[in-house]
Amino acid sequence: MNFEYSDKVKDLQARVQAFMDEHVYPAEELFAEQVSQGDRWQPTEIVESLKAKAKEEGLWNLFLPESDRGAGLTNLEYAPLCEIMGRVHFAPEVFNCAAPDTGNMEVLERYASEELKERWLTRLLDGEIRSAFAMTEPAVASSDATNIESDIIRDGDEYVINGRKWWTSGAMDPRCEVLIFMGKTDKSAPIHKQQSMIVVPMNTPGIKIERYLPVFGYDHAPHGHAEVSFTNVRVPADHMLLGEGRGFEIAQGRLGPGRIHHCMRLIGVAERALEKMCLRTKSRVAFGKPVAEQTVTLERIAESRAMIEQARLLTLKAAYMMDTVGNKQARAEIAMIKVVAPNMACKVIDWAIQAHGGGGVTSDFGLAAAYAGARTLRLADGPDEVHRNQIGRLELKKYD
Amino acid sequence: MNFEYSDKVKDLQARVQAFMDEHVYPAEELFAEQVSQGDRWQPTEIVESLKAKAKEEGLWNLFLPESDRGAGLTNLEYAPLCEIMGRVHFAPEVFNCAAPDTGNMEVLERYASEELKERWLTRLLDGEIRSAFAMTEPAVASSDATNIESDIIRDGDEYVINGRKWWTSGAMDPRCEVLIFMGKTDKSAPIHKQQSMIVVPMNTPGIKIERYLPVFGYDHAPHGHAEVSFTNVRVPADHMLLGEGRGFEIAQGRLGPGRIHHCMRLIGVAERALEKMCLRTKSRVAFGKPVAEQTVTLERIAESRAMIEQARLLTLKAAYMMDTVGNKQARAEIAMIKVVAPNMACKVIDWAIQAHGGGGVTSDFGLAAAYAGARTLRLADGPDEVHRNQIGRLELKKYD
Amino acid sequence: MNFEYSDKVKDLQARVQAFMDEHVYPAEELFAEQVSQGDRWQPTEIVESLKAKAKEEGLWNLFLPESDRGAGLTNLEYAPLCEIMGRVHFAPEVFNCAAPDTGNMEVLERYASEELKERWLTRLLDGEIRSAFAMTEPAVASSDATNIESDIIRDGDEYVINGRKWWTSGAMDPRCEVLIFMGKTDKSAPIHKQQSMIVVPMNTPGIKIERYLPVFGYDHAPHGHAEVSFTNVRVPADHMLLGEGRGFEIAQGRLGPGRIHHCMRLIGVAERALEKMCLRTKSRVAFGKPVAEQTVTLERIAESRAMIEQARLLTLKAAYMMDTVGNKQARAEIAMIKVVAPNMACKVIDWAIQAHGGGGVTSDFGLAAAYAGARTLRLADGPDEVHRNQIGRLELKKYD
Amino acid sequence: MNFEYSDKVKDLQARVQAFMDEHVYPAEELFAEQVSQGDRWQPTEIVESLKAKAKEEGLWNLFLPESDRGAGLTNLEYAPLCEIMGRVHFAPEVFNCAAPDTGNMEVLERYASEELKERWLTRLLDGEIRSAFAMTEPAVASSDATNIESDIIRDGDEYVINGRKWWTSGAMDPRCEVLIFMGKTDKSAPIHKQQSMIVVPMNTPGIKIERYLPVFGYDHAPHGHAEVSFTNVRVPADHMLLGEGRGFEIAQGRLGPGRIHHCMRLIGVAERALEKMCLRTKSRVAFGKPVAEQTVTLERIAESRAMIEQARLLTLKAAYMMDTVGNKQARAEIAMIKVVAPNMACKVIDWAIQAHGGGGVTSDFGLAAAYAGARTLRLADGPDEVHRNQIGRLELKKYD
Repeated sequence: MNFEYSDKVKDLQARVQAFMDEHVYPAEELFAEQVSQGDRWQPTEIVESLKAKAKEEGLWNLFLPESDRGAGLTNLEYAPLCEIMGRVHFAPEVFNCAAPDTGNMEVLERYASEELKERWLTRLLDGEIRSAFAMTEPAVASSDATNIESDIIRDGDEYVINGRKWWTSGAMDPRCEVLIFMGKTDKSAPIHKQQSMIVVPMNTPGIKIERYLPVFGYDHAPHGHAEVSFTNVRVPADHMLLGEGRGFEIAQGRLGPGRIHHCMRLIGVAERALEKMCLRTKSRVAFGKPVAEQTVTLERIAESRAMIEQARLLTLKAAYMMDTVGNKQARAEIAMIKVVAPNMACKVIDWAIQAHGGGGVTSDFGLAAAYAGARTLRLADGPDEVHRNQIGRLELKKYD
Repeated sequence: MNFEYSDKVKDLQARVQAFMDEHVYPAEELFAEQVSQGDRWQPTEIVESLKAKAKEEGLWNLFLPESDRGAGLTNLEYAPLCEIMGRVHFAPEVFNCAAPDTGNMEVLERYASEELKERWLTRLLDGEIRSAFAMTEPAVASSDATNIESDIIRDGDEYVINGRKWWTSGAMDPRCEVLIFMGKTDKSAPIHKQQSMIVVPMNTPGIKIERYLPVFGYDHAPHGHAEVSFTNVRVPADHMLLGEGRGFEIAQGRLGPGRIHHCMRLIGVAERALEKMCLRTKSRVAFGKPVAEQTVTLERIAESRAMIEQARLLTLKAAYMMDTVGNKQARAEIAMIKVVAPNMACKVIDWAIQAHGGGGVTSDFGLAAAYAGARTLRLADGPDEVHRNQIGRLELKKYD
Repeated sequence: MNFEYSDKVKDLQARVQAFMDEHVYPAEELFAEQVSQGDRWQPTEIVESLKAKAKEEGLWNLFLPESDRGAGLTNLEYAPLCEIMGRVHFAPEVFNCAAPDTGNMEVLERYASEELKERWLTRLLDGEIRSAFAMTEPAVASSDATNIESDIIRDGDEYVINGRKWWTSGAMDPRCEVLIFMGKTDKSAPIHKQQSMIVVPMNTPGIKIERYLPVFGYDHAPHGHAEVSFTNVRVPADHMLLGEGRGFEIAQGRLGPGRIHHCMRLIGVAERALEKMCLRTKSRVAFGKPVAEQTVTLERIAESRAMIEQARLLTLKAAYMMDTVGNKQARAEIAMIKVVAPNMACKVIDWAIQAHGGGGVTSDFGLAAAYAGARTLRLADGPDEVHRNQIGRLELKKYD
Repeated sequence: MNFEYSDKVKDLQARVQAFMDEHVYPAEELFAEQVSQGDRWQPTEIVESLKAKAKEEGLWNLFLPESDRGAGLTNLEYAPLCEIMGRVHFAPEVFNCAAPDTGNMEVLERYASEELKERWLTRLLDGEIRSAFAMTEPAVASSDATNIESDIIRDGDEYVINGRKWWTSGAMDPRCEVLIFMGKTDKSAPIHKQQSMIVVPMNTPGIKIERYLPVFGYDHAPHGHAEVSFTNVRVPADHMLLGEGRGFEIAQGRLGPGRIHHCMRLIGVAERALEKMCLRTKSRVAFGKPVAEQTVTLERIAESRAMIEQARLLTLKAAYMMDTVGNKQARAEIAMIKVVAPNMACKVIDWAIQAHGGGGVTSDFGLAAAYAGARTLRLADGPDEVHRNQIGRLELKKYD
């Protein structure tokens, strides 16, 4: 394993860092203001203007490996950049590196026809439109993806889609023009061949946003998470990705990078929480000395530092393996960081909250919001338990 | 220790339970609807109508021990009733047993002049008005209460108040007509004699609600938490409670019952989360069998049950000691439950969230909101660390 | 629940405490010396002489509820006495309240014929002989007791026993004259009717002590734990307890009290570890002030106190339920304390070890030995996981 | 960071692994037998014969970086080899890579005169003799090394040593011919200049082994840990290392490598415990299916794998930094692994113990002994708390 950064990466790191310092951190308040004024579900001017700037500076689409369309970075090379972006929740969009678009772009790049690429991928890569991903369903335990039961039924030259999805993030954004939908094309097929993925234009009749889903009281506007119903939604047959019954195959390909990006960003989130914990405890005095000098505070800062370091190294290892031996061989490592990073972040943020007193649970320091986000990532793309089961089974297999 | 319930208590338990079943649980949705329609910061009709009903049924002011004005219950007797109320966040108000009114009423009952009682206590006990408590300050580490630095300066027949408070819960409610304010009357006095508490009518000029403080993303409307500035607020000198310099003495008296009520309610919250975890895991199937039958689920249910039982018993012990040897002798036990109950509730709710998948972090099951509430109670009335330090010091004193 | 102690219990508490102070604590070193001189597997003079004294003072057989043969104490009344005894590992024997004799005496009292009682129970109650219990087997996962596979086969007027047991504590003691053996009388019976329990005199041919089992390097001499083989061991048919196929029924009856005694003693062990932690950290200075004044130390002392209090209350509740509604109705509570008490003790002792530095892991303070004992009790009578599964299933049943 | 192994290292890894498989694992029982026969405090034949073999195969002194006398490996290169050795407790000695000799050899190599090197270092490198390190004292909290209070007083051409040390590991081994002693040469000097280190031949009059210190119940014979008194021990003045008052400077240099070796070995210990946990749970059936298939088991195996991976990566990072920027710059990372590795190992071993039932706490699987060893390493070279304080302070310094 070689985690040494090349000069190219070091240069990008410096430039992303400088961009954050100059443009993104100073815009945090403005972003909040623009969201809270008028219709919360409209894109903000500030993000749009920062996107233009980032694109101009070539800090754009840094995420896409093994493709001419991206910046040509490996997962390992992208990791430190993604971590920096993770420090501000809207920063990834500024660099056109936000979920769920990145995962969707990767799916389109790998599995879509040239026509579909032209129609959707190009505009996504340009940051003109956004996209959504419709997999999880409220009616079943979607942690076991074989439970997913929406219909994608062939009818002549079309597929007819029926079902109800939730946690379809970004679907309410007016820029969201396309989504990728997972459902069953053949309920009589072998269990892992029943599911398929299909591209669905958002303006197709029969799609209805039922409601938005708050996360710990946050609406995450203007992005947000939607519950969406699909009633006799008709899509041309050539929108099917890769072929009927190959949904799981694509999911495996999609979820690997998606997961590792989440983890990289979470490391940035945790670093920022630790930074806040240090600054706060240095500046507040209780019982005669700075809170930072009390041994229980030192213990937590130390544990936070050690946990962050370890999570970062494991994430880099997973990225390195994805680059060198492929996502499938790296699946134990991907599963591990999917468990480790959100739990680590929750722990570090929780300590930071405690160090901020009442300030920790309200909006002044962004910590409660960060916690809500990290906590949700213990569930997104499968709860911890599913990943731990998988890791455990892979470990036991060594002794078959 | 005798934790046996008398017939009177068993009867009240049955009646409060029946009231909850008949009136409160069925009103949960309606409450949410009424809050979200129109001005969120207005009292809801549903709570007002339920208050009338509860008062009529004699389920009213159950909290106030050692006073003719309450129901004549001891802390131990009130505990099981308070736990039941804790299961629905607006239920305590229905029975006129909600924070911060209960603590304020107790302070007025114990330390206020007859005149002040007449003016404020009677109406609070009648549920006509509400009240607030202004102690914590944003500018200092209020976990060390000696840091509190607002001024209450004598000027002729009045006191002049200047300062900025936050986490003044309920101050935005239009029914809130009075608050109790803590600040320094004499900065040259010995450290524990500088602080005083004074009664302040909310309509006094110079009081300004600066903003409301969300908790995680919840506004907790119509109750809410306020940041309030006090600029040359003038109050008659006879509004001083107990005398200058006796703020800490009152705080000790006030915070004991306030803390134990929080803990009792938290046990109700945890019981409800466990109930939801059981119901959910029994009804969802993943990987071929109900989630409830997987050993990791059984482990968590078992740990939850054991933690709840222990926290309840310790809370009962603290209540019993408050009743028999007094709040001061019970201070180690009060501090212990103040640490144990919120942490226990956070853990149980967190497991329940995990068992609900995406449903756990959104609004459908109330779990994320419950978590936000329990998490905040690790900070309210002093963070865990302050209480643990106190418990530790009391333990070490045994070996002096 | 009434945890108030009667005058009788308060008197016994004072007398047991005084006996400990006067006779047992001062004998700790002597006990260690006598064990290490000569044959470690011989009873010590000191314990024999203290037994005579305790018997003389009427502090004898305090454990046996619902029987004329004991002191007439309920489980709840015995609890505080057992806790005090638990503070010194050899103290329970001094009062004739040591495992596994207590459990065996209870089984004989409840299920044995008058003849067997006369032959064994009387002498056990007199402290003349000791006994053992042979259940766990090295070849199978005995956590699932249905796995136990030794044979107890009827052959005319006798039963013929074959099998191999381990963790047969006390079997090497020359005073051990009898054991109770669990095995299968009928492998074709329904799964919970295959097992039986039979009384086996230790001098029966075919019994062989194969080896002693150290616990974390400790031999626990002169008591110790044995692996024992049984080869064609012939016992009169009337030594069968209660009847063929009723082994599980007896096990339930035996294990309840056995478990609760372990837990009571563990609370005493934890109290003593906390006492040592306080004394040590008060007396040692590091980095300019006593270790006791560092906040991380205060945190641990506080957590220890809160955990001990909770575990004690839950143990008292379990005892109270055993006394009032019976062992079967109390099975969730018994299972809970079986999980809670050893884990609590391990945690408290571990912190105490850490506070003693190198002194914590060696023999000077008894902490490492205490840890080894508490850790083992997470496995004895079934590992935590089995108990948690049972608690979880009982909880889920409430929603059937 | 480049963690890629060179061909040289891969070759050594394969050879050390093969040597372990062929010679060391098969000798585990024999070692135990030889220790238990006759005088436990004599070296075993088996280790002596394996040493000869390892030396012959060039698997010798692999630990010493930046020196012609060792194998020329960096810390990073040595790490994977040290991990393999760590899997069997006596294996490091077989390869002449055992503590405390490695640390002592490193001190002699860096700080001793040519004469002292000739007399002691050469023979240590040859594996002819062994050595000890005398730093910790029973009378003071040695976690704060400024507390160490033994005297090293200049008297003409000699130094006169008086004091009492404990945890002087290996001092009872008849091959132990030299030790390095830390004490105060000048109690009036600035606090960090009072301590010095001096070389002391074991046969100097006035040295007395007072007793051996068991660890939990293990004597760790024939190596063991001693309490040693020094009474007017006279040593030639030229045995002083580096100069009076430079003890802390040497300690910093010595403890870095010593700590990282402990951590590497602990990773090997944890890997072996996980291996045993997998094998055991696959082979034991409870409640109708292999213990390995129960989700709580899978959870623990997964957590173990993730914790081991992270600890290994952090250890490699620390080693890499020691090699590239030096021990001083790497002090946060060294402190982190000193905290992380023993705690990780304790956790993994504890789960493995639980999975083995009674077998886990006795001698059959080596797990209880492994636990005792790992637990002790939370204290050796400073307790966790000291290291966490240091990490915390280094983190806070970033914001000065």
